[in-house]
Amino acid sequence: MYLSKFYLPILKENPAEAQITSHRLMLRAGMIRQTAAGIYTWLPLGLRVLKRVEEIVRLEQNKIGAHEVLMSTIQPAELWRESGRFDAYGPEMLKFQDRHDRTMLYGPTNEEQITDIFRQTVQTYRDLPQILYHIQWKFRDEVRPRFGVMRGREFLMKDAYSFDVDRDGAVHAYNKMFIAYLRTFQKLGLTAVPMRADTGPIGGDHSHEFLVLADTGESEVFFDQKYLDGLNVDDELDVHDRICLQNKIDDLTSAYAVTDEKYVEEEFFERVDPDNRVRGRGIEVGHIFYFGTKYSDPMNARVQEAQGQQVPVHMGSYGIGVSRLVGAIIEAHHDDQGIKWPSSVSPFDLGIINLKRDHAQTTKLVEALYQSACNQGLDPLVDDTDERAGGKFAKFDLIGLPHQIIVGPRLAENNQVEWKERQSGKRSEMSLDEAMNRLAELAVL
Amino acid sequence: MYLSKFYLPILKENPAEAQITSHRLMLRAGMIRQTAAGIYTWLPLGLRVLKRVEEIVRLEQNKIGAHEVLMSTIQPAELWRESGRFDAYGPEMLKFQDRHDRTMLYGPTNEEQITDIFRQTVQTYRDLPQILYHIQWKFRDEVRPRFGVMRGREFLMKDAYSFDVDRDGAVHAYNKMFIAYLRTFQKLGLTAVPMRADTGPIGGDHSHEFLVLADTGESEVFFDQKYLDGLNVDDELDVHDRICLQNKIDDLTSAYAVTDEKYVEEEFFERVDPDNRVRGRGIEVGHIFYFGTKYSDPMNARVQEAQGQQVPVHMGSYGIGVSRLVGAIIEAHHDDQGIKWPSSVSPFDLGIINLKRDHAQTTKLVEALYQSACNQGLDPLVDDTDERAGGKFAKFDLIGLPHQIIVGPRLAENNQVEWKERQSGKRSEMSLDEAMNRLAELAVL
Repeated sequence: MYLSKFYLPILKENPAEAQITSHRLMLRAGMIRQTAAGIYTWLPLGLRVLKRVEEIVRLEQNKIGAHEVLMSTIQPAELWRESGRFDAYGPEMLKFQDRHDRTMLYGPTNEEQITDIFRQTVQTYRDLPQILYHIQWKFRDEVRPRFGVMRGREFLMKDAYSFDVDRDGAVHAYNKMFIAYLRTFQKLGLTAVPMRADTGPIGGDHSHEFLVLADTGESEVFFDQKYLDGLNVDDELDVHDRICLQNKIDDLTSAYAVTDEKYVEEEFFERVDPDNRVRGRGIEVGHIFYFGTKYSDPMNARVQEAQGQQVPVHMGSYGIGVSRLVGAIIEAHHDDQGIKWPSSVSPFDLGIINLKRDHAQTTKLVEALYQSACNQGLDPLVDDTDERAGGKFAKFDLIGLPHQIIVGPRLAENNQVEWKERQSGKRSEMSLDEAMNRLAELAVL
Repeated sequence: MYLSKFYLPILKENPAEAQITSHRLMLRAGMIRQTAAGIYTWLPLGLRVLKRVEEIVRLEQNKIGAHEVLMSTIQPAELWRESGRFDAYGPEMLKFQDRHDRTMLYGPTNEEQITDIFRQTVQTYRDLPQILYHIQWKFRDEVRPRFGVMRGREFLMKDAYSFDVDRDGAVHAYNKMFIAYLRTFQKLGLTAVPMRADTGPIGGDHSHEFLVLADTGESEVFFDQKYLDGLNVDDELDVHDRICLQNKIDDLTSAYAVTDEKYVEEEFFERVDPDNRVRGRGIEVGHIFYFGTKYSDPMNARVQEAQGQQVPVHMGSYGIGVSRLVGAIIEAHHDDQGIKWPSSVSPFDLGIINLKRDHAQTTKLVEALYQSACNQGLDPLVDDTDERAGGKFAKFDLIGLPHQIIVGPRLAENNQVEWKERQSGKRSEMSLDEAMNRLAELAVL
């Protein structure tokens, strides 16, 4: 992509409305624009990141055997009256009448809708277990939306729903999702700590929140420092082996880690060594629930089990805040100059900065690097504008691509370029050939 | 994918509510389920098709240099008051108050919102031309939703918006989009005829509708048979060459083709040879508009042109009904047994039917074919269920994958399988090796 053709409205000034780093950087880097309080439009640079995050979330869901569906944003109120949540949910739910005066709502979550689909389509234990998920926009009419996409009103969420014939099956589904979540956050470059948490309006008796540690987090968290060591889960773990999976989860969650809702000081002091006690703040990026028959009972979602009895299906639900994750990643990866994207979610793989467009040798090298990168399947952003060098450097540090190749007349005359790593800030001069080799290395990562 | 693990709730009976073929087949094939009148949930099989359609639409937009953004579904009423459309749009627009009593709406289209973003971010002709598009759910509160996804209330639409400094630039953008649309529909396996049409609530003075010919279409159409011959546009045409592009468009649109809104009998009789006169019905799948400064004027979206004057930007908008296209493709590609997907949008590349799971040699061949297909990047659906053979054949004809490999004990004993083409119905027995070769041919297509 050539910057001269791209749509990247950078802000030079810090926007007054942004109270936290990720909000400020997303506005400045031309990733989002506000349409109304808590409602954003994703511009091309932001949308590229959002889609990469979404795709990582999707792949890890598919990997545990979940199937993707897409439920509508608008739901009929009747479904929520069946479960008893229509009046209970409160003013965060956006309700309205359609032209025929039927009461509808913009889904803040989809337990009722998926239970309705399930009861229409599945009758026997032979079709279980099943996990269905979708990645769809939700609306929660927050009384005080703030922090950009971190606490918006319209937001993108992955929500999955598991269906099992009994509690054991449902716990196994819960455990599979637990592992999928750890893998997802790891691939996004985040340390997200699973903590025992309250179930809130979803309900149920078993729940973990996944929190990214950050000073701007809305929740207070208390945990054992050594918990962090066990969170890496490699792709080899077989999630279909029930016993082995349960052992892994027990092992992982044996250390103390709770949000303020579950915090009891005596327990914290008793269970955690003084040296390992961490109090901090966290951003909730995922939340998983086992709630048994809370919805299947009132909504009459039953299956025939092996002995021929009709039993209500055991369910769980599992959310990841996809749009919020973009903000959370920035909170975890930035410096004073701007964003430092992990490669897995960067909007472009690298930048190529042309310092003097009308200098033939410079532009020749830029084009050679661009073509080589594209041919190898990389997605580079070339700065081919007339802006002064300082402005270009500042812009590329702001938008945070992991690699920058800087091409200017002085080095170009000797067939050399400069390569800058955004993460470390390290700059190295090298020959064109060496730069080409490094591109080839990037391409196979 | 193994069918025993997949979520594919096939309906054996014809659903009473379905009045047209595509609606009936989408329900029967487990592609969609109704959540409320005109509001559907996409199940895994349907979502796979929707995503493939969406991706073809996206690639052709990118090819003409349009940039993808993502606007919110909810918009503030103020923007529509600025353009004067808030009261004019009528009861199809879903309006409501948020918890702070601000009037909001679920976007039926996005001219105002994109104009608002444009005026905040672009100040000079140097940043033009620009085409921005998004693929997002829309809501139009149809008084009588029907025909499944063909005339739903919540629907997925690609809408693009072009910004140019003058009329000539805007016409060039219009022409580029015209070609992108022809290419898109062609890749989807559809003949969509561009016709002069009314502009309706979008406004403007220059507009074409793209219609797929089908008896169930909502519009009456009148056109010159020979028009159909010129609609193929290869990928070689350079859309950036203004003159060449204009000539191509003039050439294409010289034949008579109008919807009922623009129909004048004398003109039809005068301009079209008696042998070439076609009256029929069509499904609108795309609509493009040039409307100049209709929105930029009242909303004050101005740029500085080369001579330093501030001028309102010239705009066009360009819609494709992405979810509706899934229905339109089925209307164009089916028989009495079910759907016949064009390969470009098929939910799986092929089916492999295991006629006797507990027959070792049969299952061995199925597994060999499955592994080979997957290794070559194909996406097969294996029927590994215990259903009787007739049921399996009917199901695969219903869901319409272009190729079926049928593996049963009789042939398997001789290392043979049967290959069925869904399009032609042709069945051929062949050796495993030959089937493997055909898989390799499919993989490179």
